Amino acid sequence: MDRNLALEIVKEQLTEHRYEHTLGVAQTSIELAERYDANVKKAELAAIFHDYAKFRPKEEMKQIIIEQQMPQDLLEHGTELWHAPVGAYLVENEVGITDQNVLQAIRFHTSGHEHMTILDKVVFLADYIEPGRKFPGVEEVRELARKDINKAIVLCLQNTMIFLLKKRVTIYPDTLNTYNTLLKQMKKGGS
Amino acid sequence: MDRNLALEIVKEQLTEHRYEHTLGVAQTSIELAERYDANVKKAELAAIFHDYAKFRPKEEMKQIIIEQQMPQDLLEHGTELWHAPVGAYLVENEVGITDQNVLQAIRFHTSGHEHMTILDKVVFLADYIEPGRKFPGVEEVRELARKDINKAIVLCLQNTMIFLLKKRVTIYPDTLNTYNTLLKQMKKGGS
Repeated sequence: MDRNLALEIVKEQLTEHRYEHTLGVAQTSIELAERYDANVKKAELAAIFHDYAKFRPKEEMKQIIIEQQMPQDLLEHGTELWHAPVGAYLVENEVGITDQNVLQAIRFHTSGHEHMTILDKVVFLADYIEPGRKFPGVEEVRELARKDINKAIVLCLQNTMIFLLKKRVTIYPDTLNTYNTLLKQMKKGGS
Repeated sequence: MDRNLALEIVKEQLTEHRYEHTLGVAQTSIELAERYDANVKKAELAAIFHDYAKFRPKEEMKQIIIEQQMPQDLLEHGTELWHAPVGAYLVENEVGITDQNVLQAIRFHTSGHEHMTILDKVVFLADYIEPGRKFPGVEEVRELARKDINKAIVLCLQNTMIFLLKKRVTIYPDTLNTYNTLLKQMKKGGS
């Protein structure tokens, strides 16, 4: 799908602020895809649509999670997680994107998962470090992102889980699984 | 089993420092069991034997985990976790304790698990707050332990996971499951 058409479609779904964020994620995804040899066009497309479902009513998202038999433990955790798998579903069924690599990168952009492809990693990381992000610790992740995408993602996940623990809210098990898996892979790979 | 005989048996297995810790856990377990209406004798017995396997060679512990078909993912995480399930096995097979409540409290004293009994909670918490423990944050857990055992355990788990994340080491999934489960139960219970 043409970039301009994709942006036109997604703009309808987002606030102005979230659309600006999306443009940042798209640009950062292109840069990361070039650096880490992912498919640049797919990275850009997944980035453009990654927050497609962000502003859908919670009830609608809940229905889709139930009816489409997505992992039901999503319902026991923060609603913040829902827009990623629901987004992948809607981008396929409303927008007509059928590329499974693109849909998977959208599906897992919030929690990550145990078997992330390089495309999944690019979109996940771009969402965290795009230029509009200002939270404490983001600059350190940006620096790591220039050198080692796995280390950068581990640092994202460390920061995110420490943030959630300090808030005393639940953590989605896949978030921990992603962190554990990347650490083990890095250990095996000697980095 | 008589307290003195139990202490005599476990002393053989421990360093002087770890034996002192065990005495602290036993005393604290008695106090917590009285406060939260757990079986005081079982709490004391589980506490006395909770670190029975602490100084077994790693190779021996690994063999037992494999041969006894314990959860094999234990092997992918820190060896620090192993002495708890291996301890439950050895306390049954070498010492002859057969009380399943006592063995379970030993088995899960490091990671916790999703369906902790009050006895499991008493031993888990006593291990963290016994008077010999000096690390940052322990006093706050001690205070909470006087009011709400679930909140106290959640705080243990928060502290432990933040510590592990800052060290950038893996976290055993059951540790997160215990935390998530207690938080959900507290939310349902309105506390």
